[in-house]
Amino acid sequence: MQRIIYKPIGIIHTPYTTIEGVPIQPSAAKGIRGYIIVNEEYVEGLSDLDGFSHLYLLYHLHLSKSFKLKVVPFLDDRQRGIFSTRAPKRPNPIGLSLVKLNKIESNRLEIENIDIVNGTPLLDIKPYVLEMHEVSGYRIGWLSKYKKEMKSKKSDNRFDGGESR
Amino acid sequence: MQRIIYKPIGIIHTPYTTIEGVPIQPSAAKGIRGYIIVNEEYVEGLSDLDGFSHLYLLYHLHLSKSFKLKVVPFLDDRQRGIFSTRAPKRPNPIGLSLVKLNKIESNRLEIENIDIVNGTPLLDIKPYVLEMHEVSGYRIGWLSKYKKEMKSKKSDNRFDGGESR
Repeated sequence: MQRIIYKPIGIIHTPYTTIEGVPIQPSAAKGIRGYIIVNEEYVEGLSDLDGFSHLYLLYHLHLSKSFKLKVVPFLDDRQRGIFSTRAPKRPNPIGLSLVKLNKIESNRLEIENIDIVNGTPLLDIKPYVLEMHEVSGYRIGWLSKYKKEMKSKKSDNRFDGGESR
Repeated sequence: MQRIIYKPIGIIHTPYTTIEGVPIQPSAAKGIRGYIIVNEEYVEGLSDLDGFSHLYLLYHLHLSKSFKLKVVPFLDDRQRGIFSTRAPKRPNPIGLSLVKLNKIESNRLEIENIDIVNGTPLLDIKPYVLEMHEVSGYRIGWLSKYKKEMKSKKSDNRFDGGESR
């Protein structure tokens, strides 16, 4: 089967040295600060980014060494299909977070509202543009009964380690 | 440098056979329908997804054969840093779209509001959960003067072809 090869464009630095304790969502990570060091060769690509208040970060979930098609998500007590969750044990362990951009200085981006573990390899940065989202008939399935918990819950160790891929 | 290897979990089928004419954003793709065929081996991971109205799709921009750190985006007439745009010629050509989920039948997902070219390899699916977005002090830099155009503009051929990576 076709293989797709990427390489990190930088590293995300955060206060979370282990998966345990990382907020499970940016909304629960409010005020948590960190920074990104983008590899020098890509700095030119950061032009014009400073005008945006929020960014999507796409990153490699490097601590996720295997995948499971059903997981018990942090917010729930029963098994759910992996694609209906943000759990890290995905077939392609790509993480997606919305963070606040506070400052850019050369290849260093100061960011806020971080739900990412320290040392995570960054794959891409995209501007967050609300106007481009067209959302009608909004529903959130199994998550709808956990709206309150979403704002505060932290991860535990259920997705640590695991066998090699 | 570290290489990260992914493989497609399925294929996205859309009415757009070339890059030219693809809406540049899902909001300009309102009502456009298509479907995803997920590889059989991952079907179990689709459980519980049918409760969600909207999904993030992460996919490989397979027609993007090279990258540029500055591009003239579809909406603009001057060069911008690639990371401040959604242009496909990115160092890691990963696409991100928010689509509406209409139906799931086994390994087939009927989706709507598509801004993706036909035959695109799918990397990941994540539920769209608005409550998890914490957005205060929202700004969109160079894009702010194009709010109206964002709703309708289609792509032209400026990112077609190009040299090998």
